Amino acid sequence: MKKEVYEQVRAQVLGYYEKAHIVLTEEEKNKIEIADFGLNDLEYIGLNLVTFVNTDRCCAKEMVLLPGQTCPEHSHGPVPELKYEGKEETFRCRYGTVYLYVEGAKTQEPKGHIPKGYEAVYTAGHEIVLNAGEQYTLYPGTKHWFQAGPYGAVISEFSTRSLDEYDVFTDPDIKRIPTIED
Amino acid sequence: MKKEVYEQVRAQVLGYYEKAHIVLTEEEKNKIEIADFGLNDLEYIGLNLVTFVNTDRCCAKEMVLLPGQTCPEHSHGPVPELKYEGKEETFRCRYGTVYLYVEGAKTQEPKGHIPKGYEAVYTAGHEIVLNAGEQYTLYPGTKHWFQAGPYGAVISEFSTRSLDEYDVFTDPDIKRIPTIED
Repeated sequence: MKKEVYEQVRAQVLGYYEKAHIVLTEEEKNKIEIADFGLNDLEYIGLNLVTFVNTDRCCAKEMVLLPGQTCPEHSHGPVPELKYEGKEETFRCRYGTVYLYVEGAKTQEPKGHIPKGYEAVYTAGHEIVLNAGEQYTLYPGTKHWFQAGPYGAVISEFSTRSLDEYDVFTDPDIKRIPTIED
Repeated sequence: MKKEVYEQVRAQVLGYYEKAHIVLTEEEKNKIEIADFGLNDLEYIGLNLVTFVNTDRCCAKEMVLLPGQTCPEHSHGPVPELKYEGKEETFRCRYGTVYLYVEGAKTQEPKGHIPKGYEAVYTAGHEIVLNAGEQYTLYPGTKHWFQAGPYGAVISEFSTRSLDEYDVFTDPDIKRIPTIED
């Protein structure tokens, strides 16, 4: 990602934290993570976040999706080499609306849509709509993806340890860990 | 606790969630936990909270302390019969100010004060001041207590499993699990 793009998106993301009245320290504001998953298609696919804490046992993040933006399909399975049974996570919507898709009976006429051109790499079709104050818990190994509604979304994640580098994405083109270029 | 007292305090607590822009569902609003620790001294000692999630692995709560109110000294040690190594928790202040006291070098001229008459059952004296956006992580077995500043405090807790009934309080008069009377 170009630094210029990073700074532009970061300013938008900070605006959503403000709308949601999430107070961040200056240090946190300066280390907002903007993941484009190596797809260079941030308008449609990306995830923006601050990690508050991530120890061996416990993790909390505050995530922002810009309007219509999608976090692509992935799962957090066991990591045998670390004797880790996989990440359990609860998403709690704090602002806006998020459409969450998990494995299970496919929802007819879903509110969100698979980003155009990526139909082959999105398989979970059971929709859960989370408005502010609503939440959902995902257990290890569940394929899921999520998309903001038209006004964006701010989502708290409460989870066990995060090991993003071990996330398994359905799309083989995805690189989870972003790189910033000058 | 008398139901009348519960309802009165609950209304105040809901006001602080509103000030902090924490969105709760109606169901959550109706199950606010108000702990008086069996001391019947809520103006000075108590803790008000909503538990968002509490599984075997992960827990998140949103806590309110009314102005000057104190959560009394306790620790979360290992629970051998459940093969549980004890609760790790991160407090993140979302609104107001909280004075947190942990074991360690005693702070001279602390901002908060041990509630009058309870001096014998508060031993941790190392002060950490958390304003909105600031946080602190506590590891299992650490004695701690915390008190809101003059404008109250709303605090997110991100932790491993909560087993409140196993908390160890310094004050032997404390009963953690509240009972509501008509």
